[in-house]
Amino acid sequence: MSLGVTPFEHESLPGRVVFGLGAVDRVAGEVEHLGLQRVMVITTPSARAAGNGIAEALGWRCALPFGEVRQHVPEDLAAAARAAATESDVDGIVCVGGGSAIGLGKVVAVASGAPLLAVPTTYSGSEMTPVFGITGAHKRTGRDLRALPRVVVYDPSLSVTLPPLATATSGFNALAHCVEALYAPAVDPLVALQAEEAIRALSGALPAAVAAPGDLTARGWALYGAYLAGSAMAVAGTGLHHKLCHVLGGTFGLDHAAAHAVLLPYVAAFNAVAAPEALACVAVSLGGRPEAVYAASQLHDLAVATGAPTSLAAIGMPASGLDQAAELVVAEVDANPRPVSAPDVRHLLHAAHDGRAP
Amino acid sequence: MSLGVTPFEHESLPGRVVFGLGAVDRVAGEVEHLGLQRVMVITTPSARAAGNGIAEALGWRCALPFGEVRQHVPEDLAAAARAAATESDVDGIVCVGGGSAIGLGKVVAVASGAPLLAVPTTYSGSEMTPVFGITGAHKRTGRDLRALPRVVVYDPSLSVTLPPLATATSGFNALAHCVEALYAPAVDPLVALQAEEAIRALSGALPAAVAAPGDLTARGWALYGAYLAGSAMAVAGTGLHHKLCHVLGGTFGLDHAAAHAVLLPYVAAFNAVAAPEALACVAVSLGGRPEAVYAASQLHDLAVATGAPTSLAAIGMPASGLDQAAELVVAEVDANPRPVSAPDVRHLLHAAHDGRAP
Repeated sequence: MSLGVTPFEHESLPGRVVFGLGAVDRVAGEVEHLGLQRVMVITTPSARAAGNGIAEALGWRCALPFGEVRQHVPEDLAAAARAAATESDVDGIVCVGGGSAIGLGKVVAVASGAPLLAVPTTYSGSEMTPVFGITGAHKRTGRDLRALPRVVVYDPSLSVTLPPLATATSGFNALAHCVEALYAPAVDPLVALQAEEAIRALSGALPAAVAAPGDLTARGWALYGAYLAGSAMAVAGTGLHHKLCHVLGGTFGLDHAAAHAVLLPYVAAFNAVAAPEALACVAVSLGGRPEAVYAASQLHDLAVATGAPTSLAAIGMPASGLDQAAELVVAEVDANPRPVSAPDVRHLLHAAHDGRAP
Repeated sequence: MSLGVTPFEHESLPGRVVFGLGAVDRVAGEVEHLGLQRVMVITTPSARAAGNGIAEALGWRCALPFGEVRQHVPEDLAAAARAAATESDVDGIVCVGGGSAIGLGKVVAVASGAPLLAVPTTYSGSEMTPVFGITGAHKRTGRDLRALPRVVVYDPSLSVTLPPLATATSGFNALAHCVEALYAPAVDPLVALQAEEAIRALSGALPAAVAAPGDLTARGWALYGAYLAGSAMAVAGTGLHHKLCHVLGGTFGLDHAAAHAVLLPYVAAFNAVAAPEALACVAVSLGGRPEAVYAASQLHDLAVATGAPTSLAAIGMPASGLDQAAELVVAEVDANPRPVSAPDVRHLLHAAHDGRAP
């Protein structure tokens, strides 16, 4: 009772979540419940079996199967998907896959106004946010409520085919949402509650899911963590870390989730002095002592334990691009607990490139 | 990792919350932001100072001050408020007060479609739900998204004038939302997270707020707990306890919050065998051992510690009405973890009437 409730604002986003083993069988019923009759089914190649099953269950309501998905939603693909949706006069969109499939669905939803249903197979959390992105020379993002899925169906059994490496890196994508939500300007107690719960679920489940990809219990907790992580980030927003990942992905073509895994410990270390309470929450939720300084090394240890990459060099970032990346990032960061200068970011990126201790 | 995530569905409700000391000064800005020009300001008598301040800040936007508020929203008052709103052509409603003021605002909002802003001064949690009620011979409730406030402004300083007794009973109203949300059919992990946090906040803050009504720290935590309690209940729904309170309030005129305080320990004891996990969560969140059987006695102890009434006789319930009340309740209960029979409810009500150990 010594400290009061910190003043806050909280904007709840509407949406329906259906979570459970076998929930994928309920997608067609949800589509029907929304009264949709001409549905586009966007499926990422690795989820083709699930996508086909959904298309089959939709029957005549599936007007447009769409099987092309690429990371960062390239402009030409976005244009092709929008054109196909218009031509087929679709009145709803189902996306099956990770952040890239859902990201493509969002772009079509924003253009067409058709409601979106997401069936996530990774831990990107994109399905819980109204944020969408398109990548030309650089990645541009926007926020639009039409991009927020009306229904999200989480079925842990769809994620058992996610390979161990992608499990680890996608899990770090979710962890990054939590870390940044906890120090974002719009953090509030409810967001913090979700982010802490998500870190506990993810950090407990990821090593088990990596060790045994078919472990449905671990897959369930990881997916549950990803759901809460996405929700927390959707309300609170993000900081330096997400801008770094957008630039490295959008401009340098790095794998989005892998960039998250490499950079998160470095950003946690960088922000620890400016956001000691948030990083102490991270440390505690990871099972450690409540001190901000430990968060970075715990995240690094979790990366090692799950086989996630720990250097930008290992995921294909050329050293020659680091300084340009730093300039781009500094121009984009609009909120971060610690002020961000180009020399700071250069230093951070060079350390992350070489995989030095964060 | 031994137990999987329980399957669930979660329907998020949209809405904006502004929470903080002095937040009442932001009501006019929120009204303006929504573009409202002819606002009805419903104020409960005990919050007249705050209501007048809001009306003054609204200036020409305040088209209709409305100062009559009665518990359980009697039919004649609802009709009068709706007629006044139509006559003044209001395009928005601000309610300042507890569940009764907000309940009246909801009825006008459902009839007119005008957006609702709530400024709660008690812990009823009504502001977070789309549920509304009107009382003729009996209390009837409905669920309509137009009844859900678009914006809720929580200012702990408005609750310092809530007398100790009302603080305790209204706090039990909020605690009841948490207890019933935890065993409601639509409970999910996010609801549980909110309900547990709310119980911790309320049980810590209520004794302090009763002992020192001006303690803004305690008032802040109690109001924060009430916010989460209302949110949890809005998504998960309720059971036997809320039906009991509706019948005793709507048909027998008992004070709504006082009925909550008296009955909650009895309902917790009744449901403990059927919902052992939920009641164990309650016990832990109240600071006790994780066993369902303790929840009822801890709630009873909290009632005693906060000076809340502990028998129906003490709040004016005639013994002669108990059997009729039991019949009415049994006819109304649609969900409760333990099946409800008339003899069970009669037994419970008689024990609660006499204040026997729950």
